[in-house]
Amino acid sequence: MTALLIRGATVVNADREFAGDVLCVDGVIAAVGERAAREAPAGCQVLDGSGQYLMPGGIDPHTHMQLPFMGTVTMDDFFTGTAAGLAGGTTSIIDFVIPNPQQPLMEAYRTWRGWAEKSSADYSFHVAVTWWNEGVSRDMGTLVTEEGVNSFKHFMAYKNAIMCDDETLVNSFRRALELGAMPTVHAENGELVYLLQQEVAKMGITGPEGHPLSRPPMVEGEAANRAIAIADVLGVPIYIVHVSCIEAAEAIARARARGQRVYGEVLAGHLLIDDSVYRDKDFARAAAHVMSPPFRPKIHQDFLWRGLQAGSLHTTATDHCTFCAQQKAAGIEHFAKIPNGCGGIEERLAVIWDAGVNTGRLTPSEFVAITSANTAKLFNLYPRKGVITEGADADLVLWDPQGTKTISAKTQHSKGDFNIFEGRTVKGIPSHTIAQGRVVFAHGDLRAEAGRGRYLKRPAFGPNFQAVTKRTQDLAPSAVSR
Amino acid sequence: MTALLIRGATVVNADREFAGDVLCVDGVIAAVGERAAREAPAGCQVLDGSGQYLMPGGIDPHTHMQLPFMGTVTMDDFFTGTAAGLAGGTTSIIDFVIPNPQQPLMEAYRTWRGWAEKSSADYSFHVAVTWWNEGVSRDMGTLVTEEGVNSFKHFMAYKNAIMCDDETLVNSFRRALELGAMPTVHAENGELVYLLQQEVAKMGITGPEGHPLSRPPMVEGEAANRAIAIADVLGVPIYIVHVSCIEAAEAIARARARGQRVYGEVLAGHLLIDDSVYRDKDFARAAAHVMSPPFRPKIHQDFLWRGLQAGSLHTTATDHCTFCAQQKAAGIEHFAKIPNGCGGIEERLAVIWDAGVNTGRLTPSEFVAITSANTAKLFNLYPRKGVITEGADADLVLWDPQGTKTISAKTQHSKGDFNIFEGRTVKGIPSHTIAQGRVVFAHGDLRAEAGRGRYLKRPAFGPNFQAVTKRTQDLAPSAVSR
Amino acid sequence: MTALLIRGATVVNADREFAGDVLCVDGVIAAVGERAAREAPAGCQVLDGSGQYLMPGGIDPHTHMQLPFMGTVTMDDFFTGTAAGLAGGTTSIIDFVIPNPQQPLMEAYRTWRGWAEKSSADYSFHVAVTWWNEGVSRDMGTLVTEEGVNSFKHFMAYKNAIMCDDETLVNSFRRALELGAMPTVHAENGELVYLLQQEVAKMGITGPEGHPLSRPPMVEGEAANRAIAIADVLGVPIYIVHVSCIEAAEAIARARARGQRVYGEVLAGHLLIDDSVYRDKDFARAAAHVMSPPFRPKIHQDFLWRGLQAGSLHTTATDHCTFCAQQKAAGIEHFAKIPNGCGGIEERLAVIWDAGVNTGRLTPSEFVAITSANTAKLFNLYPRKGVITEGADADLVLWDPQGTKTISAKTQHSKGDFNIFEGRTVKGIPSHTIAQGRVVFAHGDLRAEAGRGRYLKRPAFGPNFQAVTKRTQDLAPSAVSR
Amino acid sequence: MTALLIRGATVVNADREFAGDVLCVDGVIAAVGERAAREAPAGCQVLDGSGQYLMPGGIDPHTHMQLPFMGTVTMDDFFTGTAAGLAGGTTSIIDFVIPNPQQPLMEAYRTWRGWAEKSSADYSFHVAVTWWNEGVSRDMGTLVTEEGVNSFKHFMAYKNAIMCDDETLVNSFRRALELGAMPTVHAENGELVYLLQQEVAKMGITGPEGHPLSRPPMVEGEAANRAIAIADVLGVPIYIVHVSCIEAAEAIARARARGQRVYGEVLAGHLLIDDSVYRDKDFARAAAHVMSPPFRPKIHQDFLWRGLQAGSLHTTATDHCTFCAQQKAAGIEHFAKIPNGCGGIEERLAVIWDAGVNTGRLTPSEFVAITSANTAKLFNLYPRKGVITEGADADLVLWDPQGTKTISAKTQHSKGDFNIFEGRTVKGIPSHTIAQGRVVFAHGDLRAEAGRGRYLKRPAFGPNFQAVTKRTQDLAPSAVSR
Repeated sequence: MTALLIRGATVVNADREFAGDVLCVDGVIAAVGERAAREAPAGCQVLDGSGQYLMPGGIDPHTHMQLPFMGTVTMDDFFTGTAAGLAGGTTSIIDFVIPNPQQPLMEAYRTWRGWAEKSSADYSFHVAVTWWNEGVSRDMGTLVTEEGVNSFKHFMAYKNAIMCDDETLVNSFRRALELGAMPTVHAENGELVYLLQQEVAKMGITGPEGHPLSRPPMVEGEAANRAIAIADVLGVPIYIVHVSCIEAAEAIARARARGQRVYGEVLAGHLLIDDSVYRDKDFARAAAHVMSPPFRPKIHQDFLWRGLQAGSLHTTATDHCTFCAQQKAAGIEHFAKIPNGCGGIEERLAVIWDAGVNTGRLTPSEFVAITSANTAKLFNLYPRKGVITEGADADLVLWDPQGTKTISAKTQHSKGDFNIFEGRTVKGIPSHTIAQGRVVFAHGDLRAEAGRGRYLKRPAFGPNFQAVTKRTQDLAPSAVSR
Repeated sequence: MTALLIRGATVVNADREFAGDVLCVDGVIAAVGERAAREAPAGCQVLDGSGQYLMPGGIDPHTHMQLPFMGTVTMDDFFTGTAAGLAGGTTSIIDFVIPNPQQPLMEAYRTWRGWAEKSSADYSFHVAVTWWNEGVSRDMGTLVTEEGVNSFKHFMAYKNAIMCDDETLVNSFRRALELGAMPTVHAENGELVYLLQQEVAKMGITGPEGHPLSRPPMVEGEAANRAIAIADVLGVPIYIVHVSCIEAAEAIARARARGQRVYGEVLAGHLLIDDSVYRDKDFARAAAHVMSPPFRPKIHQDFLWRGLQAGSLHTTATDHCTFCAQQKAAGIEHFAKIPNGCGGIEERLAVIWDAGVNTGRLTPSEFVAITSANTAKLFNLYPRKGVITEGADADLVLWDPQGTKTISAKTQHSKGDFNIFEGRTVKGIPSHTIAQGRVVFAHGDLRAEAGRGRYLKRPAFGPNFQAVTKRTQDLAPSAVSR
Repeated sequence: MTALLIRGATVVNADREFAGDVLCVDGVIAAVGERAAREAPAGCQVLDGSGQYLMPGGIDPHTHMQLPFMGTVTMDDFFTGTAAGLAGGTTSIIDFVIPNPQQPLMEAYRTWRGWAEKSSADYSFHVAVTWWNEGVSRDMGTLVTEEGVNSFKHFMAYKNAIMCDDETLVNSFRRALELGAMPTVHAENGELVYLLQQEVAKMGITGPEGHPLSRPPMVEGEAANRAIAIADVLGVPIYIVHVSCIEAAEAIARARARGQRVYGEVLAGHLLIDDSVYRDKDFARAAAHVMSPPFRPKIHQDFLWRGLQAGSLHTTATDHCTFCAQQKAAGIEHFAKIPNGCGGIEERLAVIWDAGVNTGRLTPSEFVAITSANTAKLFNLYPRKGVITEGADADLVLWDPQGTKTISAKTQHSKGDFNIFEGRTVKGIPSHTIAQGRVVFAHGDLRAEAGRGRYLKRPAFGPNFQAVTKRTQDLAPSAVSR
Repeated sequence: MTALLIRGATVVNADREFAGDVLCVDGVIAAVGERAAREAPAGCQVLDGSGQYLMPGGIDPHTHMQLPFMGTVTMDDFFTGTAAGLAGGTTSIIDFVIPNPQQPLMEAYRTWRGWAEKSSADYSFHVAVTWWNEGVSRDMGTLVTEEGVNSFKHFMAYKNAIMCDDETLVNSFRRALELGAMPTVHAENGELVYLLQQEVAKMGITGPEGHPLSRPPMVEGEAANRAIAIADVLGVPIYIVHVSCIEAAEAIARARARGQRVYGEVLAGHLLIDDSVYRDKDFARAAAHVMSPPFRPKIHQDFLWRGLQAGSLHTTATDHCTFCAQQKAAGIEHFAKIPNGCGGIEERLAVIWDAGVNTGRLTPSEFVAITSANTAKLFNLYPRKGVITEGADADLVLWDPQGTKTISAKTQHSKGDFNIFEGRTVKGIPSHTIAQGRVVFAHGDLRAEAGRGRYLKRPAFGPNFQAVTKRTQDLAPSAVSR
């Protein structure tokens, strides 16, 4: 039996804060509050949490470790990527299995499972649906019922590659509803992006500054609205990944105002970085920010924060997907060839705390909601993850609200040579990260171990899983008899 | 020289009403106001307009005369259809050329031009783009520069037939911008309709009541939003035909609030008829109302009226497309096989006056705006059509606001055995219709002549034709130099 | 020591459902889950919850027991009213202290405290601010710091009585911010109501059907928007009571979309009853429904449900305020003299479950959120109330989802001769209510005791209490130095 | 007989542009188009308009000439102010009669009529309602029926001075409806402004930078929404003056989307100047920009342009109200004492053309709509003013789209020592202004004459004057009979 007692911290859950001790035994939270100290075994390890917040470890619902993409593979593999997460207070990830068109889903799934075995933190997978036939439909069933996959991803962009057309979207969403699985989308209109990439180049713009010009906000807003409308008609909930702009956030808010069950994810980067980075005269710096959707003009950031405050956006993630300068240089002749992706798993919690809690936008409880609890609820990991309560996994972050740190690629644990938050000084950092009841990070000392991470099965949703009631009613057998 | 003097009416234009005489000479308005009587030649024909309104003849921007569709051909040909229009005060139509996929646009255009020669009123054509290649692009150019076509239609529904995918939409919209032509869309998500038609049938619903279930409002709202977003990104204005529901009307209003040049058309039927007609126990009556988009629950009607009042919807039309009971019976086994279409060209003005002006929703000037002037402006027929001013075509309707009529298929001039407004008594009817300066309808006496109608060339739009300024600015050559 | 063990129920909190036992000892929840049975003292009372849901007891944040109003006093006093609540699963109320203009707040507060001593369930008070001077400001301070009042009510209607003008609103909101107390408003524009009451009577309409005509939805929408705007400018959160219409709900949703902390309450009656009741030919029945804001056309109901689903409306209440037919008859000559008020405390949970959970609009967890947890959080009673967790008050309702009941004034426990839900059969009813660990209602047997209820102090809010960050920033000392 | 022929210009009306000559005889447009040259008397004066646009002279619906305000009187009197207008292409103004509280409206009206006799251009008056009693109601009647006043102004700000409370608003709006007159409002919540002026000063901010802090956008948005809601309930149209921010513009757009007849006016200054001017370190420059509502952050400008494009904002004005540096210095100790007001009548047309037409936001016809035609229609001066048509007043501006000018107080005709557009170079300026058929400005040579201006009577609105249909329906005698 290994036991760890955290004493004197302010425990923060999504529903409230309270002063209380927490006891972890054998990787699980054994007691919270007065019982904790009382039940702690003699000689158990004790952490002093006074003056600090104790929160559920972060869950990053959007990462790409070890991803083969645009002819290369990301710098961080499942070990280094999850280790960087631990250093930042994130104790679980949900990554993506992305089959090539025509590739069986199960085959791709097994490949990714193999790659992920070296993870140092718990992990799970969304599986992408990039094409459609009966086999895909069957594999979706297998994944849900046997493999604990309860979410499927659809790329509405990347024409001639993994783009999913409306016929596939419609069929896959319907199948997901049948299975009790959550459809998710990368929302960008791929036809428009394809056309604009050519138009922009015709105007003589081939550098990274052309990247955002080829993916204006309305391209994302349109796709988000389309996916949401399809989900509404079919009666299935939907989750929009990396919402980056007003247009997409408004599409979500409109749908929610109709009573539809729509959820939105925001990346730490989109909350804090604007599109001026693409006009950096240094190609490497500009290219290092190339990801899709791109960073947006500042006005969008304020709107995303408001979405989190209002409850129309729900989770925060990173889309962690790191390429080094040499890899990014593949697009020196044309921005469309720059491998898309940026890091962030190590910085997410700190930058959001700094810009969100320190400014009064979010309470600590709201911070927990958007960094772990909501993700756990939406993808059916709750209450195993995302809450400090008896019986939950002992994945915790002890947060020092007075601690400060200046972010830099030079000191990051993530691989790669760049950090999109470079030079930013944040107030509020993890002093300790606890995963499966073990202290894996303490005051800068990272103790990640490859293979410690476990695959998280996420069960299908039950009978409450429905977008709305109205479609069902509309389709009820008619009273007309002829 | 033929001359006609209309005396003593209240002349109504879109910008104002005033008391004044109107003199028509050789098919053109020669004088308005005091000059009119002064300049009237001796012995010219005189109509007494006292107590009546004199308005520009109606323009119906959406008709399908003599249309081959779903394996049959509509009842009204270009003669009977335009004649019915004259009986209702409508003196011009814009019909549609609809090429089959792979058919050259010019070939289809010439076919339709031939069919239309028997028209009794002036006519013009929107041309549909149902597929894409270089030849289509070239034919669009020929149509605009040589044939006076300045608008192209895109069907976002009717999968496996004339449906236009996003790739075609994007390319055609861009070409239209280049040419100074207005893209228009039939907005329904064809993939969803296709799926729902099967789902509804699987539930055992195969009668006409299944028709609206397979095309819920969101299916239209999604497509409208998509077309508008594409137009916004490309910087081209756009016109949405037959807006039938809140969802689509809101998509237009949102875009207009961004400053985008988006225009919406409403059918008389959608303003007045609700979806209860599909639950009529008589198959023939229910099937007679099958058109797409379908009639909607009542709440949508109020919203469409508000759009006309607010200026976010601009024109009214009919989608006149008549099939008889025998033709409609093709869908007795499955609603999806019922030929889509309803009439209305003869009733449009009267039902809109009755429900719009008599209730205080619209002023007489606003009535003129939405029945003729706005269409003339949007499709570049103005001021030849749509306004009573010196030099304009002498297409007029003398309107008796006290006259009443009970609408019935038995007394209509349109061919076919059904009238969607059957039994409705309206107050406010045309006493006389004047086309090309001739009285073609007088107190119920219709004097239409085949072949009297002229083809109307509509010139391309000039330099003011742009949706918005912002995209152009966004795409301006960047200041970045590396 | 008194102990009660509830076994085998599905425990429902706002964040999740789970199977588990609950042990109550001396009025407090002592253990949840496996511990519960283990720690239950020998011989403790046991309830079998199998097949049922165990939820936190309802909290009604809006009641008027024993209210002197419009020259009479409500039928239910604090004993009968709270007892009726217990019979329906509601174990706490927040009632209102309403000083007359010029009356010191503390004086009124003490009067109400005296009346409430006979309560059979726990109770608390919002205090109304009906006028303004330094003494009012001082009394607000005393109430917050010494009496545990953390919310103040403002009536924007009832001209020449308790209506609060903008000067008072502005000053009181500012004082509330200073004190960490929540301002709440009854949102109706009193000047418009006053004018319309006269206009409607001038048209010869003096019966109850005139009541809704004198208080159209926009009258409420305007006031809600005004109160929210004032709160936004001053930087204080705000809670809108009895939101009854689209116009007010949209004002809240708009503000939330800006990131403002605005909260909305809905009454069970407004969710289910429409304005046709006022056109009942029986005066007594029509008058029995007179309350303000009035019941609305059906379309508003759907919108209120959507607000609850979307999270832009947060709590449900009743405005329980009962008058008998004889009292209502005071307005036989003029609807404006009918005492305003309806009941509902006994039916709230059942009708909302039936129309909300049974239809799929709400999950059981969402039901808990809107019937107890959110109220507890917003008025700082959480986690003492509103959640089933160790240490919370043992206020519980054991809910039989298969149980049915037909509501009637004949069988209600509330006093009075009328029930606005008369004849409605609901599925889903409380089998047992537990208050302070005692079974006070069991299968129809009500065991309420006068004086058992305790006054609930609600502490002021702490540093996280702010509407938004932006005003503070706007008002920060300027960088301009001259 | 005096005659003037303008040849070869592009005539621009709100509905279209066309090439054509215009003949003016005795102050009135005698002929347009081919007739013009034909009917021109021998020896008539001829202006060559080739390469230029000929448009209706500007109408400024919002000026304050010779206004006694905050203890001083504006620099421009009715002669110099209207003369400056002529120099900029504006040929008519609507100024304001502002009675003190308790002063009879007719008395104030006669005072202003006397002051205005020296005007060099045509003028009219809105009359302010600053208080309420039976006499005010009676005077409103006299003004409408005998004096040609068809609009009344209400100040929702300026507490303890001319502020109009809700009781007055409600009664005055109702009386305006009865009379067929348009209510207009200055929309700012006076109670909030009053409180914030004190709060801001308490923070030590007493310079001009405190002015916008005391009048944030929501203060305006709230008042606009309130006035619109009251108008909606009463069924009267409404016109909001000087809409300066997103919040107010959205309130208008929302109402219009409901079908309500609401109109918005924008000042040239609010379209082009942002709030950074208040942080100018030079007090005189900062104070010179003090007006209410204040200039706003840049983001609001874009939104106002979009409102004009979308048709949810209708007119442009200036609120011309000039004070010199010495007068502005009255507020050196506290921003609240700086006399409020800025100029602009001379620059309005040029700056809006430059920023509106040259950028593609507006077509020339839209420019005419928002600078003259819409104002003429809304205040019943049309078609005497606002359109180039036979019979209209010969008030014209010949516009040189290639001409440029750099604006400066040094070269302006308006009195005063400041110009808010100082240093701005515009392309597109008047080459000639024609008023009453006389050339009063030609290539910089101003020929204004005191006393030439005529008082314009504006008749009451007729039966089409109603905000919406629904209230009337709602209040229709009920079908209930007891």
